[in-house]
Amino acid sequence: MSKSPTTKIATHTADDVFVRGKSLCDDLIGKLTFTEMTYFHLLGTMPTPAQTAVLDASLVTLMEHGLTPSVVATRLVYTSAPEAMQGAVAAGILAVGSLFVGTVEGAAQLLTRIVSGDGDGEAEARRVVAEHRAQGKHVPGFGHPVHKPDDPRPGALFRVAEAHGIAGRHVAALKLLAAAVDDAAGKHVTINATGAIAAVLLDASIPSSIMRGLAILARCAGLVGHIHEEQSSPAMRAMWEAAERAVPHEP
Amino acid sequence: MSKSPTTKIATHTADDVFVRGKSLCDDLIGKLTFTEMTYFHLLGTMPTPAQTAVLDASLVTLMEHGLTPSVVATRLVYTSAPEAMQGAVAAGILAVGSLFVGTVEGAAQLLTRIVSGDGDGEAEARRVVAEHRAQGKHVPGFGHPVHKPDDPRPGALFRVAEAHGIAGRHVAALKLLAAAVDDAAGKHVTINATGAIAAVLLDASIPSSIMRGLAILARCAGLVGHIHEEQSSPAMRAMWEAAERAVPHEP
Amino acid sequence: MSKSPTTKIATHTADDVFVRGKSLCDDLIGKLTFTEMTYFHLLGTMPTPAQTAVLDASLVTLMEHGLTPSVVATRLVYTSAPEAMQGAVAAGILAVGSLFVGTVEGAAQLLTRIVSGDGDGEAEARRVVAEHRAQGKHVPGFGHPVHKPDDPRPGALFRVAEAHGIAGRHVAALKLLAAAVDDAAGKHVTINATGAIAAVLLDASIPSSIMRGLAILARCAGLVGHIHEEQSSPAMRAMWEAAERAVPHEP
Amino acid sequence: MSKSPTTKIATHTADDVFVRGKSLCDDLIGKLTFTEMTYFHLLGTMPTPAQTAVLDASLVTLMEHGLTPSVVATRLVYTSAPEAMQGAVAAGILAVGSLFVGTVEGAAQLLTRIVSGDGDGEAEARRVVAEHRAQGKHVPGFGHPVHKPDDPRPGALFRVAEAHGIAGRHVAALKLLAAAVDDAAGKHVTINATGAIAAVLLDASIPSSIMRGLAILARCAGLVGHIHEEQSSPAMRAMWEAAERAVPHEP
Repeated sequence: MSKSPTTKIATHTADDVFVRGKSLCDDLIGKLTFTEMTYFHLLGTMPTPAQTAVLDASLVTLMEHGLTPSVVATRLVYTSAPEAMQGAVAAGILAVGSLFVGTVEGAAQLLTRIVSGDGDGEAEARRVVAEHRAQGKHVPGFGHPVHKPDDPRPGALFRVAEAHGIAGRHVAALKLLAAAVDDAAGKHVTINATGAIAAVLLDASIPSSIMRGLAILARCAGLVGHIHEEQSSPAMRAMWEAAERAVPHEP
Repeated sequence: MSKSPTTKIATHTADDVFVRGKSLCDDLIGKLTFTEMTYFHLLGTMPTPAQTAVLDASLVTLMEHGLTPSVVATRLVYTSAPEAMQGAVAAGILAVGSLFVGTVEGAAQLLTRIVSGDGDGEAEARRVVAEHRAQGKHVPGFGHPVHKPDDPRPGALFRVAEAHGIAGRHVAALKLLAAAVDDAAGKHVTINATGAIAAVLLDASIPSSIMRGLAILARCAGLVGHIHEEQSSPAMRAMWEAAERAVPHEP
Repeated sequence: MSKSPTTKIATHTADDVFVRGKSLCDDLIGKLTFTEMTYFHLLGTMPTPAQTAVLDASLVTLMEHGLTPSVVATRLVYTSAPEAMQGAVAAGILAVGSLFVGTVEGAAQLLTRIVSGDGDGEAEARRVVAEHRAQGKHVPGFGHPVHKPDDPRPGALFRVAEAHGIAGRHVAALKLLAAAVDDAAGKHVTINATGAIAAVLLDASIPSSIMRGLAILARCAGLVGHIHEEQSSPAMRAMWEAAERAVPHEP
Repeated sequence: MSKSPTTKIATHTADDVFVRGKSLCDDLIGKLTFTEMTYFHLLGTMPTPAQTAVLDASLVTLMEHGLTPSVVATRLVYTSAPEAMQGAVAAGILAVGSLFVGTVEGAAQLLTRIVSGDGDGEAEARRVVAEHRAQGKHVPGFGHPVHKPDDPRPGALFRVAEAHGIAGRHVAALKLLAAAVDDAAGKHVTINATGAIAAVLLDASIPSSIMRGLAILARCAGLVGHIHEEQSSPAMRAMWEAAERAVPHEP
């Protein structure tokens, strides 16, 4: 660990704030969208229009999927402690964990492995699937309890990537992996949203190390929306009572 | 409370997800920016280009201000529990509370009061200031410990609002309030970022009830950036040890 | 604010840790119960046996009340992110907010007011009730949706306080307040657990400023118990699906 | 997963609350200490006096160690959002993660392995150490940055276990492991508090699956104490400013 750690993100003077060396007031406010600013803040360079498009599409995809456990937790906490909206958002974010985010990162690692292999992606994809089956593990990025036979979101994400000319090696690797998954399963298994997001973000040169953070950010926006609905149209008590009734006490 | 609560936000079928009645895959992914989607999710209508511009500018403004208490908390928690990035983001969000967010909402209420008064905004602004002084209270939206004599961010925000033709009654009310604050103080006190954001968002018809959520969202992006820096360039130990040394034990 | 802040809680050397000036290893481990240590840590003096008894009784009372919103939030988060038990506990704690804890503090303030009035507690109790009714507000510490006509916990708490000779002025004030509440309502309204806890803790000279923290601590233990059950007998999916079904989408 | 999940923890009627089948009001309030109730809630049986003593000693040991990252996070969040003490406690709990709690669980697993081996604990201990060294990993439960050459807490914990006649196979296994660690390192390395807690709790038949939760509970009490000090003697600003200065901006 460095003896004298520093930060490269931001500094300020009486007259301005500087983020990654640019003047917040002259160069960033009114010049960048929130998505562009997020990319610039995270990675220190300006995104290309194609990167911005893929990032916007991924954030839009991840923002909302109905009354997920994360959303239910946020609504339960909000109505219990309405003095602190930040606590309700935090509770929902705490549910964006390994079950969901782990699959984006897991899928990204597999795609990277297939792409950086020594040429025969198809064989590597088959090896990946065989290894997972041998260990009784699910291949991350595949399958969905509701969206069967096909999750509709991957197609929409691939179209954005293609329209911006960056559906490349990782989307191709995901399709090889999908063929191997289907072959091994003896039936069609859908690519899901997290698999597709891993592929298009990697093709946009967005590193896997920030995918978890992007998922948290997208869900944060959705959670705020659910709190806003809870304020005017409260549903917490109905959710709570139904949850309580669903799990009776057994002596 | 309604007997049968419902949600208007989202539903899904095997084939698609619908947010506020629109197809996620056909109408939203690749069609909206993250900022537009956030507005649409929260309020149920599509933003105008001017609303999007002001919302983007506000989110960009709020994302980052260096090693704030919120950022320090996130970095302390991240390095203590790196298995759960979501916990570190949650810890930082928990610091986006009344000290900061309260001032956006407080300023928005005062501006709404001045605008909706019966005409003489100047007199209403003076009354607002007199009331706060009588109670020994700070007028929200004014003053900054670092940005003196003037916080640079309000000017940048006003320029965005003006460029899009929506710097209107609330920005005008804020300027009346600023004059009254200066008069009463006998010196110049800066409008700060939260005062300016309250004014431009109100002029963009974005309700004060979601301003707190927007502040949380903007900070969420910044916190993810600081975690990303902490991963490659750890500073937590230096921050912790300095904090510990700064508060000696006294028997 | 002090120029040079200090902490009086703890310090350490290579050989020992000192809490409030006592040797952790010689004076505290094996000498104090967790409850005594909590009191000593919080208040800096050793509790009397009566204070310990009332504190234990209060913590035991608050630990558990079935599948509360707090417990449901913890279980939803735990199963979504099992890699981080601390996140699940944190989510449940975030629900220990104004709706619950506020009533302990609110009741404590009213009892303090009645006790410190100039003698006629009965008249003061009637004034308190009249003021709340005039403002359409609920008197904190009274009423319970399930425990009707009487919450059983206050009786148990009063018995502990009486057995240790410290059921005194605040329990008496609570009974005066209860009579005034019943009179004004024209029917019997139960004293609830939070009202009784406020009374017995005040009679044990435990300040109201730490009651909120004690409630959080008691619930923390209960949340850990629910996580432990969720590990071996998962109920999260049933709770989630019931909650989701209870709030249908409405276009 | 069971088709019809249930909970065995609690139920309630109008007249009482039942925890693990016992009447809260008749059998638990005033009858159990908080520590006994925590054990009973978690494990469903009443602790023996020896189990209670070891559990109390472990909770007392873990409650406090000065201005840890967890405490600093709590104080930063509390002063930023004083309206929500629960948020500040939650932030500190989020720092009770793998870096700390992981070592209790890791040590417990190693001790269980040594105890349940086929007889030669000394050889198994040497194998454990050799495996960790081969992988460049630290043996959990050993070493401390401040408490050198010896952490004082293990001795205090062993004395409690011995006094109650339950310092048994796991404490013995820890001492074998310590000898193997010293041998391999060619110098003395202290057993630390987490190693000792793993040993005495296992000897008290408290399962490793709840040790993480006990650590969170003990720290929860300590965090409430620090918030209470922050209320009357604020140190947050000094900690924040020192942390900020310790990490300068570098372009």
